[in-house]
Amino acid sequence: MASSTQGQVITCKAAVAWEANKPLTIEDVQVAPPQDGEVRVKILFTALCHTDHYTWSGKDPEGLFPCILGHEAAGIVESVGEGVTEVQPGDHVIPCYQAECRECKFCKSGKTNLCGKVRAATGVGVMMNDRKSRFSINGKPIYHFMGTSTFSQYTVVHDVSVAKINPRAPLEKVCLLGCGVSTGLGAVWNTAKVEAGSIVAVFGLGTVGLAVAEGAKSAGASRIIGIDIDSKKFDVAKSFGVTEFVNPKDHDKPIQQVIVDLTDGGVDYSFECIGNVSVMRAALECCHKGWGTSVIVGVAASGQEISTRPFQLVTGRVWKGTAFGGFKSRTQVPWLVEKYLNKEIKVDEYVTHSMNLSDINKAFDLLHEGGCLRCVLATEK
Amino acid sequence: MASSTQGQVITCKAAVAWEANKPLTIEDVQVAPPQDGEVRVKILFTALCHTDHYTWSGKDPEGLFPCILGHEAAGIVESVGEGVTEVQPGDHVIPCYQAECRECKFCKSGKTNLCGKVRAATGVGVMMNDRKSRFSINGKPIYHFMGTSTFSQYTVVHDVSVAKINPRAPLEKVCLLGCGVSTGLGAVWNTAKVEAGSIVAVFGLGTVGLAVAEGAKSAGASRIIGIDIDSKKFDVAKSFGVTEFVNPKDHDKPIQQVIVDLTDGGVDYSFECIGNVSVMRAALECCHKGWGTSVIVGVAASGQEISTRPFQLVTGRVWKGTAFGGFKSRTQVPWLVEKYLNKEIKVDEYVTHSMNLSDINKAFDLLHEGGCLRCVLATEK
Ligand SMILES: NC(=O)c1ccc[n+]([C@@H]2O[C@H](COP(=O)([O-])OP(=O)(O)OC[C@H]3O[C@@H](n4cnc5c(N)ncnc54)[C@H](O)[C@@H]3O)[C@@H](O)[C@H]2O)c1
Ligand SMILES: NC(=O)c1ccc[n+]([C@@H]2O[C@H](COP(=O)([O-])OP(=O)(O)OC[C@H]3O[C@@H](n4cnc5c(N)ncnc54)[C@H](O)[C@@H]3O)[C@@H](O)[C@H]2O)c1
Ligand SMILES: [Zn+2]
Ligand SMILES: [Zn+2]
Ligand SMILES: [Zn+2]
Ligand SMILES: [Zn+2]
Repeated sequence: MASSTQGQVITCKAAVAWEANKPLTIEDVQVAPPQDGEVRVKILFTALCHTDHYTWSGKDPEGLFPCILGHEAAGIVESVGEGVTEVQPGDHVIPCYQAECRECKFCKSGKTNLCGKVRAATGVGVMMNDRKSRFSINGKPIYHFMGTSTFSQYTVVHDVSVAKINPRAPLEKVCLLGCGVSTGLGAVWNTAKVEAGSIVAVFGLGTVGLAVAEGAKSAGASRIIGIDIDSKKFDVAKSFGVTEFVNPKDHDKPIQQVIVDLTDGGVDYSFECIGNVSVMRAALECCHKGWGTSVIVGVAASGQEISTRPFQLVTGRVWKGTAFGGFKSRTQVPWLVEKYLNKEIKVDEYVTHSMNLSDINKAFDLLHEGGCLRCVLATEK
Repeated sequence: MASSTQGQVITCKAAVAWEANKPLTIEDVQVAPPQDGEVRVKILFTALCHTDHYTWSGKDPEGLFPCILGHEAAGIVESVGEGVTEVQPGDHVIPCYQAECRECKFCKSGKTNLCGKVRAATGVGVMMNDRKSRFSINGKPIYHFMGTSTFSQYTVVHDVSVAKINPRAPLEKVCLLGCGVSTGLGAVWNTAKVEAGSIVAVFGLGTVGLAVAEGAKSAGASRIIGIDIDSKKFDVAKSFGVTEFVNPKDHDKPIQQVIVDLTDGGVDYSFECIGNVSVMRAALECCHKGWGTSVIVGVAASGQEISTRPFQLVTGRVWKGTAFGGFKSRTQVPWLVEKYLNKEIKVDEYVTHSMNLSDINKAFDLLHEGGCLRCVLATEK
């Protein structure tokens, strides 16, 4: 299926972040054809996630402007560059900010999903092949973001950064499997490996925390304690498997002590899904002596540090973290899509708002409203 | 084999710490007979370890004086209290500061060696049965220490805190299996589970660090990098398996960066065997992205904290700790003794000095001399 735009520069709409903390503007952007090992994707739906906001806000010291943000999306391959064998025009895909080359030291280790193949390029907003951007406006280059840049009707990604999925899957839903939902599920299944009967604490009940709860429920956890400073989260959280709720604001004691008291010594597993370093400490310290494992999922602001007394670890607690839930992206995102199609995992339930790409600034504002889990933007308009 | 002293108070020599930071004095101490579930042990040999020094120095906020320190020793059961079935007079034993009751939540978890059975008593220097000490001098009670108090010709321990060992084992050597050597080996085998081919960094080449190196070698590590600020340690360390040496004083760069550069991205496993919180951070940060695991073995001074950027964990490093190397004491100390008898692990090589109990203050001074690994005291004189 050769497309009429193959080999051509495509001019399309994209939301451009010109500088930190300034509203995005919808622009006509030129998207160059894919080079060797690259894939041009027509993005149909994209959601917003906190990392987009973090970089947009200017707090990310590695943020580059102007850029096209966005990393939680789904679309259809428009054309492919030389040497691309695993996808072809027409394939339904999810762009993956976490690449999977299957060849590098990381991929071959069998111990991590953190592929190193294209990181040197994606970390500085360009493509590997020529160290340049495929996006421009009247000749002025616009940086890529996380190797995905999905706030655009078309984007170019490395072939190691795109997962081919079942074409029966509704793209306006499964786009969420590009980041938040997968991260939460994987934190439980891959990073913590929660066993049946475990007591689990989830700090932060946004999309990531709810997906942690869902993952813990499917792993057979006996108690899932949800902790959030916004009690409005508690109602919806029940349907994701949370069995008990704690609002730190209702207690004078440190939250770790509250959880230890509730659980006769602490939880088996805890997950920090906020990005707050003092909550990360609490999440570790509410773990049971001897075996409790805490997983950091939230992303803290640059420069912030976690701390604790080393005795916490010497007495058997384990401190870990996770990126994209430990999922190997190209291999496992399609598997997650199948699980969704088989109704084994929720996705629809995380979509609380739907808008158009042109409403993106409104969607950014929604990120900070308790009622919003994920807002999905259609790029067509 | 009933002993003539059974049921009697025994008066014997012990080194008493009357107050923090004052030389110990050898005293005539009355040792009461063992009560229900207790064992009175004739200690023949005891070594010194840093925890003894730490509490003696007054830095341990839980330290109680006057007390009888000591926790790395071997001896022979003199008599047993009611209900004691697993040892009897004449048995050769190693007192275990880490108890193993096989009944408590911790023991039954299968996930930790941190038995909780007698901790409430041993933590405050008394025996469980009557919450009193078995040691006294002219009626004035002297506190127990770590449930072992081995700086005495006789001591009383809980039956869950004593491991029966092969009587063929030389007690002047295997006493070391009561703490330092076992801790280092277990940190590698039980806590980190180092695999063949791994690159390992060991921070601190005292007894614990050398035992880590030995454990790593036996696990098939391909490189064992020893880090110490005392270059005199490097010669002896070779015979324990260390393949490369780094003295942080020879480098301007932070030591974590030196190790990362030496290993093309970091080590697979690192062990902090010093008790220094900034080295604990370095040990974590010299681990390879994606999978590197750092184990804290050293005991830091009270109130000190470890810290790092959470990104270190989010990108796949794991931070752990170990107490007594994760060994189940009553079950596994006898197994370690067998391994020693079969020449599968070193012990003799850690004994650099031998003295009598009466020389204990000299032995304490040796703890801070580079040339001393373990000093073993005979209690007979
Ligand atoms: N590690 C990864 O690969 C990865 C991937 C995706 C997202 N993330 C991160 O995960 C975090 C959560 O993402 P999200 O989309 O679910 O965010 P969200 O903002 O929707 O949810 C955060 C929740 O935490 C609650 N909260 C805030 N402060 C709190 C506190 N002090 N105590 C208790 N609750 C508190 C908020 O009320 C909210 O419900 C973010 O930091 C995001 O950057 C990490
Ligand atoms: N977790 C446990 O169960 C357990 C059990 C036994 C001992 N320990 C602890 O393990 C630690 C080591 O015990 P040990 O008997 O081997 O001690 P040790 O004093 O014999 O050895 C420590 C070594 O570290 C070196 N060192 C000091 N500062 C350093 C630095 N900044 N960088 C590099 N090297 C440095 C010293 O030169 C020395 O060689 C102690 O803190 C002890 O309390 C813990
Ligand atoms: Zn995201
Ligand atoms: Zn790779
Ligand atoms: Zn010790
Ligand atoms: Zn127990």
